[in-house]
Amino acid sequence: MAGTDASKTAPALDGPAVILVEPQLAENIGMAARAMGNFGLTDLRLVAPRDGWPQKSAHKKGAHQAASGAAHILEAARLYPDVPSAIADLNVVYATTARERGQLKRVVGPQEAAADCIARAGAGQKAGILFGRERTGLTNDDVSLADAILTFPVNPAFASLNLAQAVLLVGYEWYSQATGAVLPFAPVREGLNAVPARREAVTSFFDYLEAELDAAGFYPPDKKPIMARNMRDIFHRLAMSEQDVRTLRGALVALVQGRRGGRNQPRPSRRKTASAEEA
Amino acid sequence: MAGTDASKTAPALDGPAVILVEPQLAENIGMAARAMGNFGLTDLRLVAPRDGWPQKSAHKKGAHQAASGAAHILEAARLYPDVPSAIADLNVVYATTARERGQLKRVVGPQEAAADCIARAGAGQKAGILFGRERTGLTNDDVSLADAILTFPVNPAFASLNLAQAVLLVGYEWYSQATGAVLPFAPVREGLNAVPARREAVTSFFDYLEAELDAAGFYPPDKKPIMARNMRDIFHRLAMSEQDVRTLRGALVALVQGRRGGRNQPRPSRRKTASAEEA
Repeated sequence: MAGTDASKTAPALDGPAVILVEPQLAENIGMAARAMGNFGLTDLRLVAPRDGWPQKSAHKKGAHQAASGAAHILEAARLYPDVPSAIADLNVVYATTARERGQLKRVVGPQEAAADCIARAGAGQKAGILFGRERTGLTNDDVSLADAILTFPVNPAFASLNLAQAVLLVGYEWYSQATGAVLPFAPVREGLNAVPARREAVTSFFDYLEAELDAAGFYPPDKKPIMARNMRDIFHRLAMSEQDVRTLRGALVALVQGRRGGRNQPRPSRRKTASAEEA
Repeated sequence: MAGTDASKTAPALDGPAVILVEPQLAENIGMAARAMGNFGLTDLRLVAPRDGWPQKSAHKKGAHQAASGAAHILEAARLYPDVPSAIADLNVVYATTARERGQLKRVVGPQEAAADCIARAGAGQKAGILFGRERTGLTNDDVSLADAILTFPVNPAFASLNLAQAVLLVGYEWYSQATGAVLPFAPVREGLNAVPARREAVTSFFDYLEAELDAAGFYPPDKKPIMARNMRDIFHRLAMSEQDVRTLRGALVALVQGRRGGRNQPRPSRRKTASAEEA
């Protein structure tokens, strides 16, 4: 989805390192970088990518295309020969895996891992998350270097997430918690739309509506009070702004004038014969 | 990541419909289906896919490859000519968009939308979520057919999510809430690892460790009580199982016997000269 606003800057947040262990396809490295960019993660580490790094021009192009604007993350990626060197400076390491490994490590979901990463960053510690090879994931030896296992609350009958999707979910949970899940925009409410209409505009609208409905024979005898209350209920649910009241009143006037043959409103031709008040 | 367990079945959950409006690439339809499969969503609706549906064999193959095991979702996908027909049976509709539309709709994040979908399903209502075209998203006319806007708490400087990623995040939040974020596995604790060790095994381990450290001259005079307490603190943090105690005790015995020239342990050659008790 489009929507990137280049005038906005990412919040400066100290997120966990994303460590891709022996990634195979440049496109997947690029997609992971893009997912990181979506959620304000910047520390990308590559352990022995199959095709090397920086990659040959064709591969590099694929990675950058897939990164789709997160080239700055790719450019800043650091290369390591093995997992121990990639995690050397970290204080805590999570290993993502979709299957049980027979290791008695703590197993957490993205929410718990994100909360821990945020708490540690606040204490000046640095966390990192290991992501495995596209086809085979992390080896048991890779997992044995981590403090805890990170897995996802997925449908157990279909648990396979691709690399970039796993990075995306980790980034999403981390960014949501780090920023309080602030959404990038809120409904535009400015001018006449900024606030609910003053009540005199609303009651005036009701008065006009009810008078016209009365004139049109809408209310059966003795039913007007309850029917009018019900109608007011419906319109109160709209929490109308001044602009809403004007729009709806304008539509109402058009319907009434059209029915009466008012000069300013084109009369729908099909309604001509149904117009009782006119010629 | 691998990890799908075909012996497990998806929980039967009544999730929201995923409605892809004029998707362009078969691969993206497949990736969206895969993301749905990961999180137990099954109701896929396609509005006027650019290349038609069912697609020509080449396209169809791309979609199925990308779906990676979610072919049942693709096969059950329903085709509609336009958005109104695709949402006709729904009780509430969300429109996903990464940018503000100048429409005064309620704007919610994935958490709130997921909670609403679950509450509505519980009341027998059916919800659906519109996802736009890969390049241009939903039109304002598409959005005007929805009850509310669904957007993501993303880095505003880099807000563009691809189609499958948007579906993935919606599915993740919905499934997490619908299932209580149950993870697909927990640490294996069985046999000697199932429970914390009986305390007599732990104190026996401490006694052995402290006696050997004493014999090795580890404790300075008068410091033994506090140093022993600190060492016990370290090992208590492990919350050792019976198996852990056996493993650590075995390692300790090996170190002591090796140092003493025990027959069953090979002595590291470098340590030979550092061995004070022998030869």
